[in-house]
Amino acid sequence: MRLGMTDLADLARGCAFLGSGGGGDPHTTLVELEAALGPAGTVELIDVDALSDEAFVTPCGWIGAPTVSVEKLPSGDEAIRGLRKLESIVGRRADAVFPIEVGGSNGLAPMLLAIRAGVPVVDCDGMGRAFPESQMVIFNVAKIKASPAVLTDDKGNCVVIEAADNVAEERIARAVSVVLGASCHLMEYPLTGRQVKASALRGTVSDALAIGRSIRLGRESGKDPFASLFAALKASHQFSSAGVLFDGKIVDLHRETRDGFSLGRATIQAFGRESRLEVEFKNENLVARQDGVVRALVPDLITLVDRETGESIVTERLKYGQRVKVVGASAPRALRTPEALEILGPRAFGIHTPYEAIEVLNQWA
Amino acid sequence: MRLGMTDLADLARGCAFLGSGGGGDPHTTLVELEAALGPAGTVELIDVDALSDEAFVTPCGWIGAPTVSVEKLPSGDEAIRGLRKLESIVGRRADAVFPIEVGGSNGLAPMLLAIRAGVPVVDCDGMGRAFPESQMVIFNVAKIKASPAVLTDDKGNCVVIEAADNVAEERIARAVSVVLGASCHLMEYPLTGRQVKASALRGTVSDALAIGRSIRLGRESGKDPFASLFAALKASHQFSSAGVLFDGKIVDLHRETRDGFSLGRATIQAFGRESRLEVEFKNENLVARQDGVVRALVPDLITLVDRETGESIVTERLKYGQRVKVVGASAPRALRTPEALEILGPRAFGIHTPYEAIEVLNQWA
Repeated sequence: MRLGMTDLADLARGCAFLGSGGGGDPHTTLVELEAALGPAGTVELIDVDALSDEAFVTPCGWIGAPTVSVEKLPSGDEAIRGLRKLESIVGRRADAVFPIEVGGSNGLAPMLLAIRAGVPVVDCDGMGRAFPESQMVIFNVAKIKASPAVLTDDKGNCVVIEAADNVAEERIARAVSVVLGASCHLMEYPLTGRQVKASALRGTVSDALAIGRSIRLGRESGKDPFASLFAALKASHQFSSAGVLFDGKIVDLHRETRDGFSLGRATIQAFGRESRLEVEFKNENLVARQDGVVRALVPDLITLVDRETGESIVTERLKYGQRVKVVGASAPRALRTPEALEILGPRAFGIHTPYEAIEVLNQWA
Repeated sequence: MRLGMTDLADLARGCAFLGSGGGGDPHTTLVELEAALGPAGTVELIDVDALSDEAFVTPCGWIGAPTVSVEKLPSGDEAIRGLRKLESIVGRRADAVFPIEVGGSNGLAPMLLAIRAGVPVVDCDGMGRAFPESQMVIFNVAKIKASPAVLTDDKGNCVVIEAADNVAEERIARAVSVVLGASCHLMEYPLTGRQVKASALRGTVSDALAIGRSIRLGRESGKDPFASLFAALKASHQFSSAGVLFDGKIVDLHRETRDGFSLGRATIQAFGRESRLEVEFKNENLVARQDGVVRALVPDLITLVDRETGESIVTERLKYGQRVKVVGASAPRALRTPEALEILGPRAFGIHTPYEAIEVLNQWA
């Protein structure tokens, strides 16, 4: 499948939804893509099964605080410098790239790199959404090593990390990203085609594309963009259950940039009745509690969506007074195993409520 | 010249003095050396002029807070792993190593590496003392690149830094050292023999050895160890002027470990009269003020010495009630140029007093 600019704009919209508030605002990356691609250009998206077992495939994305990435623009060569360095370490050229996380701008970033490197993008990712820490990825669940990892910035700095374990890799990469301005490109988890086939979350790029397209078409047809969004989620490879958790207005917002993350919470007041939903985030939305009762928990998706346009609002764009629907969706099945929840479930974020599936919590069955 | 255990113990004593309070307590490294060397073993110390112009020579040392290194012992293979990684990047084996800073345990560390790698140590260093930040080195004054730099820790982590500039290299290395426990081995400023000959501070390892020996011999002969210390400094390659700045008891001590450094100040009360000397430190002692009047400024050396034994006391070993002589000595000439002072003089530490030579401030001429 070849993706043109309309597809990429839909993909950006879908990635913003799947980002669950995080992964960075895709807008800047979309503008960069438009400049890189020209009006008639396309990016090749290939199926996971098209990879040979021996292929060298590398996920990529940006590490840092999304609040920073809104203001600190990239130089444009971070990713290709990182790829070339990783290739020189591995001793061969990459055959394909894909997003480490399909959520937010990180879902689009590999498209830019694919154009620069002349390779296709694989229709998969490592999270099926976005997560704030780099060890919160299906490849870590599968016990694949994150190293060697390559971190590059806009000033020409390059750091190669060969970590003793994947948590150390995250901690080192995070610390370096903070001193370099909290927005760096990171190549990590270099993989073989066989590893991608065994572990990656399949079809998530085309899921994001379909989700974004459904929102646009729903809105353009004058109908409810949410109805078509839910239809697209239901038809997706990875996201079977979805629904509106809450409908209201943001009446309180705490957000700070600390330790290289955007941390905080948003409080949403229902229209015409006394009920509030509080959403806590660490780059991504982690938990939604309505009047103290848990409605959704990480890794299930929680996204604040503009209630008129159906466009998702990333955490760094949240503002007092925004009228939003809070949409929840079930996480990919692979993120719900006990092994995965250990790494990326509520407890990994210091939330002591045990994980319960969003469709159970909300009796969507 | 071949150094046996007695020489190395003297070297440790001299390095503690030249460390100006920093560089880490050499005691642990001396114990490691004893274990590595055996009773009859020796380390080869060669003159700078013995290097061929094309030799590959690499300084080495530890980065972190000395307060941490007292408690967090090394695994023992940090340095050799770092050297092997650097060699694999440069594409050849190192011909020799030397201390990036001759002060504190970092003056001894290359001896251990030399034994492991089977190479000699060059009689030189990059600072003629110790400094808290890695860009505060004569090779940076000479505009030589710090990168590629290799940081290793006791857990098996390895980070290769290719920084855009030498200040970025320090900031990245510092951030990584902090997340890895504030005590890491760092290989940086890989050099050719020609660069060592042109820029290194010559003879500083044998200076440290002579200084340490003079303190021991002065004490063993039952005479004043300070008299023989000053004679050794006067006869050294790099440290011409020296004297006692103050004599008294530590009556106040502030010390904290922050941002990967040991920061604080010690106040020394004179015996039998109303006068106090305050010494500020950031790993190393930076400025000594007597009743508000500056007596010595970085890069000149300020070392607190036990007034009975003549042994130097590194900042992490300072204690309330210690009876000390504060000894000052002139920095190597190469550290006093305007270009060097820009990088490692008072202003580089946020001290607004313009640099004045210690022999002028104290009218030692």
